[in-house]
Amino acid sequence: MTKTYETYQQRLQQIHDLYAAAAVLSWDKEVYMPVKGARYRSRQVATLSGLAHDQFTESAFGDLLHALLGKNDLPDPERRNLERTLEDYTKATRLDRAFVERRSNAISDGYHRWLKARKANDFTVFQPALETLIALKKEEADRIGYEDHPYDALLDQFEPGYRSHQLDTLFADVREQLVPFVRDLRAKPQVDDQFLYQTYPKDEQWEFSLHTLRNIGYDFDAGRQDFSPHPFTITFSPEDVRVTTQFNEQNFATMCWSSIHEGGHALYEQGLPADQYGLPLGQACSLGIHESQSRLWENQVGRSLPYWRAHFPELQKRFPKQLKDTTVEQFFRGINKIVPHPIRIESDELHYHFHILIRYELEKAMIEDNLAVADLPTAWNEKYKAYLDLDIPSDNRGCLQDIHWAHGSIGYFPTYSLGSFYAAQFYAKACTDIPNLEEEIGQGNNQSLITWLRDNIHAHGRYFTADELCRRVTGESLNFEHFMTYARAKYQQIYR
Amino acid sequence: MTKTYETYQQRLQQIHDLYAAAAVLSWDKEVYMPVKGARYRSRQVATLSGLAHDQFTESAFGDLLHALLGKNDLPDPERRNLERTLEDYTKATRLDRAFVERRSNAISDGYHRWLKARKANDFTVFQPALETLIALKKEEADRIGYEDHPYDALLDQFEPGYRSHQLDTLFADVREQLVPFVRDLRAKPQVDDQFLYQTYPKDEQWEFSLHTLRNIGYDFDAGRQDFSPHPFTITFSPEDVRVTTQFNEQNFATMCWSSIHEGGHALYEQGLPADQYGLPLGQACSLGIHESQSRLWENQVGRSLPYWRAHFPELQKRFPKQLKDTTVEQFFRGINKIVPHPIRIESDELHYHFHILIRYELEKAMIEDNLAVADLPTAWNEKYKAYLDLDIPSDNRGCLQDIHWAHGSIGYFPTYSLGSFYAAQFYAKACTDIPNLEEEIGQGNNQSLITWLRDNIHAHGRYFTADELCRRVTGESLNFEHFMTYARAKYQQIYR
Repeated sequence: MTKTYETYQQRLQQIHDLYAAAAVLSWDKEVYMPVKGARYRSRQVATLSGLAHDQFTESAFGDLLHALLGKNDLPDPERRNLERTLEDYTKATRLDRAFVERRSNAISDGYHRWLKARKANDFTVFQPALETLIALKKEEADRIGYEDHPYDALLDQFEPGYRSHQLDTLFADVREQLVPFVRDLRAKPQVDDQFLYQTYPKDEQWEFSLHTLRNIGYDFDAGRQDFSPHPFTITFSPEDVRVTTQFNEQNFATMCWSSIHEGGHALYEQGLPADQYGLPLGQACSLGIHESQSRLWENQVGRSLPYWRAHFPELQKRFPKQLKDTTVEQFFRGINKIVPHPIRIESDELHYHFHILIRYELEKAMIEDNLAVADLPTAWNEKYKAYLDLDIPSDNRGCLQDIHWAHGSIGYFPTYSLGSFYAAQFYAKACTDIPNLEEEIGQGNNQSLITWLRDNIHAHGRYFTADELCRRVTGESLNFEHFMTYARAKYQQIYR
Repeated sequence: MTKTYETYQQRLQQIHDLYAAAAVLSWDKEVYMPVKGARYRSRQVATLSGLAHDQFTESAFGDLLHALLGKNDLPDPERRNLERTLEDYTKATRLDRAFVERRSNAISDGYHRWLKARKANDFTVFQPALETLIALKKEEADRIGYEDHPYDALLDQFEPGYRSHQLDTLFADVREQLVPFVRDLRAKPQVDDQFLYQTYPKDEQWEFSLHTLRNIGYDFDAGRQDFSPHPFTITFSPEDVRVTTQFNEQNFATMCWSSIHEGGHALYEQGLPADQYGLPLGQACSLGIHESQSRLWENQVGRSLPYWRAHFPELQKRFPKQLKDTTVEQFFRGINKIVPHPIRIESDELHYHFHILIRYELEKAMIEDNLAVADLPTAWNEKYKAYLDLDIPSDNRGCLQDIHWAHGSIGYFPTYSLGSFYAAQFYAKACTDIPNLEEEIGQGNNQSLITWLRDNIHAHGRYFTADELCRRVTGESLNFEHFMTYARAKYQQIYR
């Protein structure tokens, strides 16, 4: 390979083409593939991913990165791309092919046993596979290396630079501030959200979700929305970012807030610099920052009174029968009802962090050998009783509910909470920077916010770490106080 | 590489995964991709195809093929796979990367100039690009090699083993038998097809086309139908074969016969042996044989009186207003109306072969240097006058109408006629083998025919050459007389 930046760029973009192709195949699998297509589709995706991994971890590519980074005259954005790629390369090459294959087999086995265990509502079916996975994740942490705690090596794959001692502090705040705050709310007279559970015809919901996506700035010339069993956002290039949604005709919330949530993710991906396709500066900063973009639109904007002042009339027009007796204030209170639920993805936006707190405590304890996998269901149920005051009726509505551990994703869950907390902090800053922001939103005009997010967050790709970005945008590192301020202001208004 | 059949199989299937992935990306591009997605999609497809080509033409792979074919104890189906792959390998390695890139650039330029030329209705815009392409195709023929005529090297890529002297004989028959037969038909009183040109609502057409696909045995668990500007069939595996169609609410024929045509192609692909995925025995025999499968369903079955005796009642039920005054006999005559048309794809099934005859004569003459590209429009128009008695009003309804030459496809057009002629010969044999075939079809039961096609044609993949297959199935090589027999019987019934 000639040792030029162009060689690096071509090489990395070509590798990215393979990942993008695998993404198209995965998208199709979820939305349009006929049932019998699964067998060969799986091997096609595996071939693409394997080839991309092989090409990325070639030692000649590593040599190229080192050689280029040794040059003195490298302009700044190019240097940053190379640095980030070297970080990725270093991590990727620490796991050899034999380990990656062992892990891949364990995940495949874990996934199938998890499906079976859920169906049979029998944790012991999943238990041996989870034991294997936990052992492998500890081995992975050792191979990757860490300074302080093996969990850090795992967390770093999803939230580069973030450490478990920071999570410990953050979740201590959740325990000490959010848990009692929510407990107080639960004691207050409940709000009414019955209007959500009427028949909302699918086609009208679909049209309203398209309206919502357009309204938050999602570009339909560079994306599309389809149905899938589980909503997701997927990127083939910054010029083709797709979202999916699901529907429940008996619950208006299902499609509405999944659309705006995925729309927030997609807006980020559409806002990444297109000329940096396949390079770090063309990629999202971290999972936590990614989640901040979806949560900000879903919660700070999409569950706010100003937003619905602008859009409730349109909603009433589409569903006159269902919403004729509901005022916008009642609607706002109903969609923010606080009620503990055993299932994470059906949780309100405050209890949600209790679910994450519990998963963080448990997965870290398993990695530390402070919790045997066999004792997971008991530990799970105890924590749900302690934090949410809930009795968990069965493991498939308890510790078997999420796919993440079965997929070998340890260190992933906390990024959901990080996302919400970043969202609160970013949104507070946006309100300071744009004095009339909530008035504009109340008039149906989101343009100032979109521009603010584009300039302050999207445009930078992976140039900054999450912490650097947060300090650059808000003047300080992640600070849980912003989320509490947001929660207090909003829920004292709702629960008076 | 270890020199085992398993190594060969894994290698080739992995290469096929890349082509299959490129096919998914191409399908998505035609049916669902948002407009801005085009830029990066093109490079993703190019990366996949380039990588597949590189892997296939590696000399180590050639060594493996030679080593395996040198073994004595190779069982027959494995030997045949290796032989076919060596044929492909030999052809592929005759064109080096520099040539392939030059050709690829010329095609890209040719395509864009062709689009412009059509828009401007100005052949001279396309002419220089076509001159370059013809020169390159002659160079390609020289590189690939041929015994008799350079055209053979080009034709062989689409119809392996077929030669231009055979096409000369075949098209001499077309000129001597079909041209006067159709001229006589044109002199007879015309049939009425006005019922086709009413408003046929899109959704009802769509439902009827699904009904048609199901009826001819297309498996919707291993495929799906979508809309695209130009109908096509595309294969990701024998377990995921998709078709597309288009609609014209003012012309019922557009969707109906495009669906059954593509359905015939897809039925072939779904009938290929799934355990031979990616290997020659899992692939179609030739373009001519492929087209025989689409034409047989479109014309021999889909424009026959028995078929519509079974399905016209269903059609009338869906379009009661449009078809209340039409009998099935009138319908049958109308859908088989013979009328010369300047556009190939809007032609009836007999005039169609005049369009191919003309293209064959012209492309062969250009390859032979017996026709200068500059003289193409004049030559084109003269032949349309001679064979179809038509004055061509403008080049974009004349020699600029098809994309094939702009794509560098010389030797492709004849496979359309070969397909129809094979279809007539196969169908005649099927009628002999299944004495009650047309009665069954008249009762809406296509199962005997589907089974006959599965057993006699689909199951063999590329085991036989087209000629071997034809002789095996019908007892003789391709014989144009079967098509004339079919045409005489059918059209003497229609034009009395």
